[in-house]
Amino acid sequence: MISEHFKSMLGQKSVIREMNAAAYAMGEKIGHENIFNYSLGNPSVPAPAVVNETMIDLIRNTQPLALHGYSEGHGIYSVRESVAAYLAKTYDIPYRAEHVFMASGAAGALAHAFRAVVCPGEEIITFAPYFPEYGPYVHATGAILKVVPADTESFQINFDAFEQMLSEKTAAILINSPNNPSGIVYSTQTIQKLADLLHDAQKKFGHEIYLISDEPYREIVFSGVDAPCISSYYENTLMCYSFSKSISLPGERIGYVAVNPACKDAETIIHMCTQISRGIGHNCPASLIQLTVAKVLGETADLSVYEKNSELLYTELTRMGFSIVKPGGTFYMFPKSPIPDAVEFCQKALEYQLVLVPSNSFGVEGFFRIAYCVSNDTVKRSIPQFEKLAANYF
Amino acid sequence: MISEHFKSMLGQKSVIREMNAAAYAMGEKIGHENIFNYSLGNPSVPAPAVVNETMIDLIRNTQPLALHGYSEGHGIYSVRESVAAYLAKTYDIPYRAEHVFMASGAAGALAHAFRAVVCPGEEIITFAPYFPEYGPYVHATGAILKVVPADTESFQINFDAFEQMLSEKTAAILINSPNNPSGIVYSTQTIQKLADLLHDAQKKFGHEIYLISDEPYREIVFSGVDAPCISSYYENTLMCYSFSKSISLPGERIGYVAVNPACKDAETIIHMCTQISRGIGHNCPASLIQLTVAKVLGETADLSVYEKNSELLYTELTRMGFSIVKPGGTFYMFPKSPIPDAVEFCQKALEYQLVLVPSNSFGVEGFFRIAYCVSNDTVKRSIPQFEKLAANYF
Repeated sequence: MISEHFKSMLGQKSVIREMNAAAYAMGEKIGHENIFNYSLGNPSVPAPAVVNETMIDLIRNTQPLALHGYSEGHGIYSVRESVAAYLAKTYDIPYRAEHVFMASGAAGALAHAFRAVVCPGEEIITFAPYFPEYGPYVHATGAILKVVPADTESFQINFDAFEQMLSEKTAAILINSPNNPSGIVYSTQTIQKLADLLHDAQKKFGHEIYLISDEPYREIVFSGVDAPCISSYYENTLMCYSFSKSISLPGERIGYVAVNPACKDAETIIHMCTQISRGIGHNCPASLIQLTVAKVLGETADLSVYEKNSELLYTELTRMGFSIVKPGGTFYMFPKSPIPDAVEFCQKALEYQLVLVPSNSFGVEGFFRIAYCVSNDTVKRSIPQFEKLAANYF
Repeated sequence: MISEHFKSMLGQKSVIREMNAAAYAMGEKIGHENIFNYSLGNPSVPAPAVVNETMIDLIRNTQPLALHGYSEGHGIYSVRESVAAYLAKTYDIPYRAEHVFMASGAAGALAHAFRAVVCPGEEIITFAPYFPEYGPYVHATGAILKVVPADTESFQINFDAFEQMLSEKTAAILINSPNNPSGIVYSTQTIQKLADLLHDAQKKFGHEIYLISDEPYREIVFSGVDAPCISSYYENTLMCYSFSKSISLPGERIGYVAVNPACKDAETIIHMCTQISRGIGHNCPASLIQLTVAKVLGETADLSVYEKNSELLYTELTRMGFSIVKPGGTFYMFPKSPIPDAVEFCQKALEYQLVLVPSNSFGVEGFFRIAYCVSNDTVKRSIPQFEKLAANYF
């Protein structure tokens, strides 16, 4: 019989997708240009031209059997060498190809990292607010996701709550900075304190605690913001990266796991990733896409529009009376709902064609997410609508 | 701590990869042109030119955000429509987009199919000889793989043994025709009898038994061979397809699951596949690759070389004294080892620079696999070496 487990998951609706569907339905009625759809985290700036040029060059000038042939289970070796060299140069950490596993985006990278360093029944601790897909990602591995309540004043880490949650069952810590949905970047002070606590906890519990660092927004950091390289502070770090946001290739499913060379069992973990792949049917990202990103490392799409949008929304919304922790990066912000029920607030916002996502699915009550990966013009045109919405509350 | 389960898998060496490594080491010493590497099932004919032309055309003429953007969890809808229309026309079965899930090659397709219709603890029955990766694929789902011993006279199905293995625990049957490693294509008579037995078993046990049909070699069938469309004979069929072999794109990781429209819960199964993806970090094949294959459906690489190689090897090896069930397709054949110990035989073959794979890992003793996806010239030059090898036995 079909799996009741996966069948029952069909009932679990994504609030984000529901809001997006509501936006679409409204757009069909009154014109999509009149809808301010802030629901989806889909890049709004195109991939840099060099991506397409590189693809065409590869297709034209590579022997087809080599271009489209099987890649090794770990990813194409030359691609892993390029990624390692780029990381080593950028972050001054001696990564080599043996520390890099090519994965199908951050989702693929996390799927491997979780299975490599966490066993069924062990715990992974993450911090609210957090990306809702962490739930099903971890659940499928048989591990347990524990969530530290948010520090809603700063959206940095609530260390008191975290210390209470650490136990001998803790196998890994999962962080996401720059953060979806808060837009906050963990400061050097936060990362240093986290590393200190984890070093202590490793001693106390007598086993490794791995830090799984989900970094798809790493390149989207606004000017002047303190954005430390997380792997530099803690040896047992598995960096999970995606090219989806930085070069606007979300559909091409490309990213990697890079294990800190100083991590215990670093190379073994990478070898284990290929064994994990066998069971989950992953078998590497597409060859052409692997070869392409290896040639455009360090390139980004024009990310400046996100900072421009962030500035405008932050200035205008705080002026109207909204309380917001200022984003340090990404294309999200996470204002406080003016009423305790964020779902009700987001329903109200729909009356003004503003499509926002209530915070509940991110593990926090009473906030809402604005995904401002839209054109600057759309943001500008949305301000009067926010004014009307705000007039109900302030 | 790192997962002992996946760490222990590092010890499990693939015989195929070991033979390939032996071939490489030998080639470094005496020149790769002097090695007859029949170990790997890697296509030797390039992708048809239309594939690269289509890719370049898509890159040039598609808006980058659309081209490289997120695809729906099920795959890009227009791609699913194209695949369904192609299947409907080709096999006269009324597939619609709702019956198609885009997957990262056959491995990805099988990973989803197993989880959709088989629950942990239930049984999947397959038939020796079989692709060794079925073991880890099924093991990772928590289901149990049962193997029906081979009918070594024909490599069709050993129905007596199969009937004994069918039980109320049987959730699915996994077949692979045209077959790796035997090269045999299941006849209409075989498929009809299999369908009849499964219809009876469904009644007897009071639940569905799904047929998971792994079809990456579907287009590589030699002239005059009876090669029925399996889905036409049994409603509850999940067709798992890959473009790796037919258009020589193994590295691009693209395929699909197509559920027979008459299958119980057909559309639900496809929806469930997207839920399964969430847990295993799959999230669709690359967008560019999806869009490309949708435009080249029905195209194939120049597959004629495989039939030519097959004819030559079959004629020459049987003349020398080898006993072989004549392949009906693929680029494999599976002769009987002239001595009971196929491992010893394959070691002997290495002395003649012939790299063959012993049958043990395919679930049968005393045979060996020849993967003749090499140039016709390589096959010709290998014949004198086979002569020398045969002289030891016949």
